[in-house]
Amino acid sequence: MSDLRLERIPEGAITATPGFEAASVACGIRSTGAPDLALVFSRRPCVGAALFTTNAFKAAPVLYDRAVLARNANAFHGVVINAGCANACTGAQGLRDSQATAAAAGAALGVSGESILVMSTGVIGVHLPMDKVLSGVKQAASSLDPGIEAGHATARAIMTTDTRPKESAVRVLTPGAAYTIAGMAKGAGMIHPNMATMLCVLTTDARLTPDVAHAALTQATEVSLNAVTVDGDMSTNDTVLLLANGQADVPLMDAASGSRYAAFVEGLMAVATDLAKELARDGEGATRLVEVTVRGARSRAEAKQAAKSVANSLLVKTAIYGQDANWGRIACAVGYSGIEVDPERVNIWLGDLELFRLGAPYDVNEARASEILAQKEIAITVDLGAGDAQATVWTCDLSHGYVDINAHYRT
Amino acid sequence: MSDLRLERIPEGAITATPGFEAASVACGIRSTGAPDLALVFSRRPCVGAALFTTNAFKAAPVLYDRAVLARNANAFHGVVINAGCANACTGAQGLRDSQATAAAAGAALGVSGESILVMSTGVIGVHLPMDKVLSGVKQAASSLDPGIEAGHATARAIMTTDTRPKESAVRVLTPGAAYTIAGMAKGAGMIHPNMATMLCVLTTDARLTPDVAHAALTQATEVSLNAVTVDGDMSTNDTVLLLANGQADVPLMDAASGSRYAAFVEGLMAVATDLAKELARDGEGATRLVEVTVRGARSRAEAKQAAKSVANSLLVKTAIYGQDANWGRIACAVGYSGIEVDPERVNIWLGDLELFRLGAPYDVNEARASEILAQKEIAITVDLGAGDAQATVWTCDLSHGYVDINAHYRT
Repeated sequence: MSDLRLERIPEGAITATPGFEAASVACGIRSTGAPDLALVFSRRPCVGAALFTTNAFKAAPVLYDRAVLARNANAFHGVVINAGCANACTGAQGLRDSQATAAAAGAALGVSGESILVMSTGVIGVHLPMDKVLSGVKQAASSLDPGIEAGHATARAIMTTDTRPKESAVRVLTPGAAYTIAGMAKGAGMIHPNMATMLCVLTTDARLTPDVAHAALTQATEVSLNAVTVDGDMSTNDTVLLLANGQADVPLMDAASGSRYAAFVEGLMAVATDLAKELARDGEGATRLVEVTVRGARSRAEAKQAAKSVANSLLVKTAIYGQDANWGRIACAVGYSGIEVDPERVNIWLGDLELFRLGAPYDVNEARASEILAQKEIAITVDLGAGDAQATVWTCDLSHGYVDINAHYRT
Repeated sequence: MSDLRLERIPEGAITATPGFEAASVACGIRSTGAPDLALVFSRRPCVGAALFTTNAFKAAPVLYDRAVLARNANAFHGVVINAGCANACTGAQGLRDSQATAAAAGAALGVSGESILVMSTGVIGVHLPMDKVLSGVKQAASSLDPGIEAGHATARAIMTTDTRPKESAVRVLTPGAAYTIAGMAKGAGMIHPNMATMLCVLTTDARLTPDVAHAALTQATEVSLNAVTVDGDMSTNDTVLLLANGQADVPLMDAASGSRYAAFVEGLMAVATDLAKELARDGEGATRLVEVTVRGARSRAEAKQAAKSVANSLLVKTAIYGQDANWGRIACAVGYSGIEVDPERVNIWLGDLELFRLGAPYDVNEARASEILAQKEIAITVDLGAGDAQATVWTCDLSHGYVDINAHYRT
């Protein structure tokens, strides 16, 4: 691994990966007139891998994508993404609409309908306005552009309550080979471990088999996009998609092991973690990015469970918003996380400031706590004193803005 | 059971039960000068039963009560409750303080220290100001009063962010016997199934063995106080305590079965459910009481799990606050609750208005939805179409007020 070099691509976009083009249009799904339909396309067929929401109410695009991926994960050309309507809880009509969207894109691009995936985000329980969607797809297909600006525009078109686009790209440099991994995501509310109203598209020109693509995506997502929580809700639509067009001059990766695989996973993690942190930072109403690390756990699973419990605690999140070093709420959330905890072995830090030592209150330097809490990124660390495992999750504070946004989303 | 009659006692207080006296004083734990220490006492020794928080960080009063109850559940005289300081995460000193509080009350009242229980609520991680507490205990012991007003004052003294006291009392009338069950509670934030910063004291003059008292308390709490959630956090201090002084002229209940036991459980449920609904209605920042019923489930446990998922969803709670009939968020929360759900069998109602039928959007009468959402009590019903079991939980909406209260609790 010491021969691996990751180079972040400044101002990277989904189109930073050679062979990928993008387009975005305003087709009228949103009443605001903002761009609401995006297309990411590779003329060269791609290996595809995807992870979907675990919600029992799976949206039509999730059901459609899952079905086409199960039939053939080897010949994808792209994905159509719309914002403004989730096409969720829309029954058989919804599934036909997803299929028709893909078919229209395929027809316009001269590829099969089944080689196009679809994603939707927005209001649940409303049918897609198909006349607008189909004309939007045609318009997008005729305006594909491999440039970085087209990539940026695509990342903006898929936003809902997001206040800014989320993009990241890296060059992976290994001895004798180089390739790119790029990604974009949308999120804001409803984000939670296990994929929740989060859409993410990752592109690469590395050469992978479908099995390797799926293994790497699962491994990278677990420590990045599945370690983000905004409000604990899990959506009907969440999808992480990886498209690999194999255009780079590198050997085929056909095993989920070894140093070449490890390098790819590291690159994918870098991009996915950048996106994960941006999702948390831009949580609905967020004023702070909060990074919760639990260490000294008996297993990574227990560490993550305790970290999620802290990250999901409304009392912790409102305390951060109020810039209050209320470590009692952190201890409390660890205590009810469901893992076995010996209070007398627990230490808690806010940034580099110790708040709680071996289960007892610590004389907190309130001036230093205030300095730390005034920053835009807050680190909370909990040591359980029970083992060697650790996990990190990201969240944001809970503000008045969150309530504003969600009290009147539909209306 | 047809011979059973429950009569609610108007303006009932903890002292509605014959033989119980109460006192409350302002001893200076709170800087506001408001009453902050309460005493409930019965000269006649009581059978005691209690349920405690499942949080791994158990506060000192919880550890103390659990220990004395384990030694002898047959000879309690009362409970000292303080607000303003939770005596949680306070180590060995905290435990000594709880013990000293009980000992002081016992000495002042001429009973053993171990016959007095203690409860604390307030900020975590701060030691009790014992000089103030001990002088408060003495003052309370000398001002005990069996009147209803003294009971009301006690319910007010234990409030923290509560905006009003929670009290309820019933007369249980069975053939040839009558007795009283009365209760008070405090809650507001941090309330969640499994006892969370909720303190509740129940008194009765029924005659019970400790085992019967424990069985009845567990059964009644499961469908009432453990079916309330405000923000999903579980505190270090939650306690439900039942004191039975056996003063009524009724036969001893020595088995957790039969019609006399069922009558007692029904009476206890009535009082505990009144208190549970008051806790939800007065959740921090609440503007609406929300009752979520899931029916058609395969088991009561699954029904409760799905109902809790809906009740804990920030997106559902903010939609109710915003008076938005966003049934998609309700379906979504059922979908990620972790129970098996067949979306195509699910129906959802808001009050008597159908929102969602067999997994597909229903043409919602928005005018009627607005009428329902303008009311102070909102009922959400979900039918899973999978079985005969059901469960109800109570919560409140999530408002700007919640954020205000919790952003600056300590400061």
